[in-house]
Amino acid sequence: MSHSSSPSRAPVAWIAGVGAVAGLGAALARRFAEGGYTVALTGRTPQQLDAVSVAIEAAGGRAHAFAGDVASEAEVQGIGQRVRALGPLSVAVFNASSAVRAPTLEITAEQFTQAWRTTTLGGFLFARDALQALLANGTGAQSPQGRGSLLFTGATAALRGKPPFAAFAAAKAGLRSLSQSLAREFGPQGVHVAHVVIDGGIDGERLRAGAPQRVEQAGADGLLQLEAIAETYWQLHAQHRSAWTQEIDLRPFKEPF
Amino acid sequence: MSHSSSPSRAPVAWIAGVGAVAGLGAALARRFAEGGYTVALTGRTPQQLDAVSVAIEAAGGRAHAFAGDVASEAEVQGIGQRVRALGPLSVAVFNASSAVRAPTLEITAEQFTQAWRTTTLGGFLFARDALQALLANGTGAQSPQGRGSLLFTGATAALRGKPPFAAFAAAKAGLRSLSQSLAREFGPQGVHVAHVVIDGGIDGERLRAGAPQRVEQAGADGLLQLEAIAETYWQLHAQHRSAWTQEIDLRPFKEPF
Amino acid sequence: MSHSSSPSRAPVAWIAGVGAVAGLGAALARRFAEGGYTVALTGRTPQQLDAVSVAIEAAGGRAHAFAGDVASEAEVQGIGQRVRALGPLSVAVFNASSAVRAPTLEITAEQFTQAWRTTTLGGFLFARDALQALLANGTGAQSPQGRGSLLFTGATAALRGKPPFAAFAAAKAGLRSLSQSLAREFGPQGVHVAHVVIDGGIDGERLRAGAPQRVEQAGADGLLQLEAIAETYWQLHAQHRSAWTQEIDLRPFKEPF
Amino acid sequence: MSHSSSPSRAPVAWIAGVGAVAGLGAALARRFAEGGYTVALTGRTPQQLDAVSVAIEAAGGRAHAFAGDVASEAEVQGIGQRVRALGPLSVAVFNASSAVRAPTLEITAEQFTQAWRTTTLGGFLFARDALQALLANGTGAQSPQGRGSLLFTGATAALRGKPPFAAFAAAKAGLRSLSQSLAREFGPQGVHVAHVVIDGGIDGERLRAGAPQRVEQAGADGLLQLEAIAETYWQLHAQHRSAWTQEIDLRPFKEPF
Repeated sequence: MSHSSSPSRAPVAWIAGVGAVAGLGAALARRFAEGGYTVALTGRTPQQLDAVSVAIEAAGGRAHAFAGDVASEAEVQGIGQRVRALGPLSVAVFNASSAVRAPTLEITAEQFTQAWRTTTLGGFLFARDALQALLANGTGAQSPQGRGSLLFTGATAALRGKPPFAAFAAAKAGLRSLSQSLAREFGPQGVHVAHVVIDGGIDGERLRAGAPQRVEQAGADGLLQLEAIAETYWQLHAQHRSAWTQEIDLRPFKEPF
Repeated sequence: MSHSSSPSRAPVAWIAGVGAVAGLGAALARRFAEGGYTVALTGRTPQQLDAVSVAIEAAGGRAHAFAGDVASEAEVQGIGQRVRALGPLSVAVFNASSAVRAPTLEITAEQFTQAWRTTTLGGFLFARDALQALLANGTGAQSPQGRGSLLFTGATAALRGKPPFAAFAAAKAGLRSLSQSLAREFGPQGVHVAHVVIDGGIDGERLRAGAPQRVEQAGADGLLQLEAIAETYWQLHAQHRSAWTQEIDLRPFKEPF
Repeated sequence: MSHSSSPSRAPVAWIAGVGAVAGLGAALARRFAEGGYTVALTGRTPQQLDAVSVAIEAAGGRAHAFAGDVASEAEVQGIGQRVRALGPLSVAVFNASSAVRAPTLEITAEQFTQAWRTTTLGGFLFARDALQALLANGTGAQSPQGRGSLLFTGATAALRGKPPFAAFAAAKAGLRSLSQSLAREFGPQGVHVAHVVIDGGIDGERLRAGAPQRVEQAGADGLLQLEAIAETYWQLHAQHRSAWTQEIDLRPFKEPF
Repeated sequence: MSHSSSPSRAPVAWIAGVGAVAGLGAALARRFAEGGYTVALTGRTPQQLDAVSVAIEAAGGRAHAFAGDVASEAEVQGIGQRVRALGPLSVAVFNASSAVRAPTLEITAEQFTQAWRTTTLGGFLFARDALQALLANGTGAQSPQGRGSLLFTGATAALRGKPPFAAFAAAKAGLRSLSQSLAREFGPQGVHVAHVVIDGGIDGERLRAGAPQRVEQAGADGLLQLEAIAETYWQLHAQHRSAWTQEIDLRPFKEPF
């Protein structure tokens, strides 16, 4: 892909669900920044976004932080407007989610709702806003990559409900379904919609802080490396529109499945 | 299955999502009433529940109407208490859903939320309440049918997101996922959890009133007959616990798929 | 279903893959014989077929044994002719299979081929012959059950390849695919084609003789009971053509999945 | 990936199922040759292999043609030995298949068998031989890409049996199942096994010669471009072993699915 070298006209990558610097959202942002994109970062915690932003700019990239709640229609729309002001949106990644882990009879209605809001409703609101920007890429209609990409971070739970993840799995299943509807509706209009099924633990801050023994037991490359995951999103975005992927799974080589 | 002949001790079938007399909820209630169950009917419209109830009692069955909103935790719990007072719960069927049909960019956040509330959240709240009653069937633990059944009405959309059904499909996908989590969690505890994938038009009031030309075009047995569907739920409930079904599809013989 | 009481005109159930009396093929034959069908038994071992046949007749049923190899086109056709002479074919069940259990690099080309011959090729040859007889049921075209049923015994391996079952799984996956093609092609012509996914150990002679400790560990109803499985085939055959099942899974209530 | 620059020690890519220059096998070979691999070409027609080989060498690559039948154990083993003599095997692609298109009752036992031999048995024999070479890559055990890749060309038919493709679909379903068994068995040993689901028409010689009107109707990028497909195989091979894909689908942006 060739991009204009003018910063103000560089294509924009909007990543929602950015948290820790050592998290997947941040790694995705770094990958697209390295690829020449202006990256727009959305997440709940301004401090985290700022840290990611600073790191990207220190490495020579362009990053803008827009804190907000993807489950709020007003906030998503407000952020969307500011993202569009950065330049033409070329790729939008929805990476937010919220895990609840409990026996099903102990999951409260609030927890069940919250899992859905962050993952499924958030995905819907984000997609609806991003699609309007992507569809506005008139010049992209005939380009080999089409008008751009809308990528969703999924999980094995999306394909298979299982305790103690009933709320998380139902939310991820809804998101996966949404990605399929959008692919069928907007693929022919030139937007590449894909769902990435992450199957296994991610070698990031959440596990390193929360389950260090699991990190140790996993051994070399036994957890998904952030850069390795991000590379696949990059390659999905780079696919030629004559051969687009709707769903891809990723797991460590030693992961049982 | 043999049941006590005392009305007050007859096993109870609780059907949520009962609407028109010529609808699936009503047909399910009729089937279980014919099989000797006291049926508890839940739906949003008291008049409809009363009509179904009257018809069942006219045919010699026992029916009780409990109007309410399955997406309201308080209402589900309140109804659940009254259902348990009728006798031991043996089968609970979640048949509620709410279809939205629109291009995805025209679906409002409220519509998307409403589809989820009726289908996924409602299914969760109903299941949680019904499971507590089913698990209380101490004597059923060693019976060939286990402690009873929790059955969900699904749709092809649950397996495959497709416009203009993005909201409906995401909600049904969440419900299907939930049914899997529950089957894995409560099967070993003796509760049979199954998901019925209905693939095709149902020959009921909704289509007859809303799309009469489709009914005509379908020809003989080209739409799912209410009694035929209900019979499968009955047979699922009757399955021996050594050979339980988690998912089954149903479609007219001439339906393309 | 009501059947003519004249033995010579009773509908015929043809079961292929009949082995031990305490096996699934025999249980399926018993169930259809109890339902009033003349049963035709096919399997490799004449002595086993005779034993099953004798047991069915002792219980008042009608059974005919036709030994042969389902992977031989000539033998299947020869048996098919003799089956058709018994009366109108109403249900055909393909239950044959051949398991190979080995690390993949140790599976020989002959073993891989043999697994396919018994399961996939056998299923194809049997189906092709049975379909011609089923389609000849002119009077059945408008009946509620259509012209009859063609049922396949499947396995979880059909959905998921896994060592040490690479050969078995590939063969069962081919059979499942075949059942889908046939359902789509012959459903509209009035033949009910369904695939039964058996997930778990069967409480039959094979396990009782070969892995008695597994039978013991399974505990009460921890293995699929033969009669319980057979009942589901019977119910599939009885389904109304407006609501046919293409695939159904069966597993013990305590089976992890 | 960095490779030795010595031609005799360049890693080897073995592509089976190479036909016309304007076909997928040839495009895959070109892509790996451009990436610095010595490519070994296997197909049934020596003249076709020679033409592909000449084209690759004219472009500065290294190619070796080994004509043979992948369904013959002896031929696969003989070719395998010659491939291993070229250098360390790093990627093996199974791209052979054989389509039969006919109403199921008109498919002969020979045609059904032939579809399976070329696709499923061929895939098994090729995989078994290639795996032995890949597992011998001792030094690769700790490399980021593991010991190498074994990639299979699949089709939508592998996921969904449908007339008039009953034979083709059953064969492809068997191949897909095999790829899953191998991924589960050899992933932990460092071999990346993946299955590429090609969904749509390929813009190659077969369609251009056999169905020119379909090529025309497809319009710009309405058929899968050979280079676009090949690029995805290349990227699969390049994946880091902490994030391997087992299955990926590819279809033109405007393809209904």
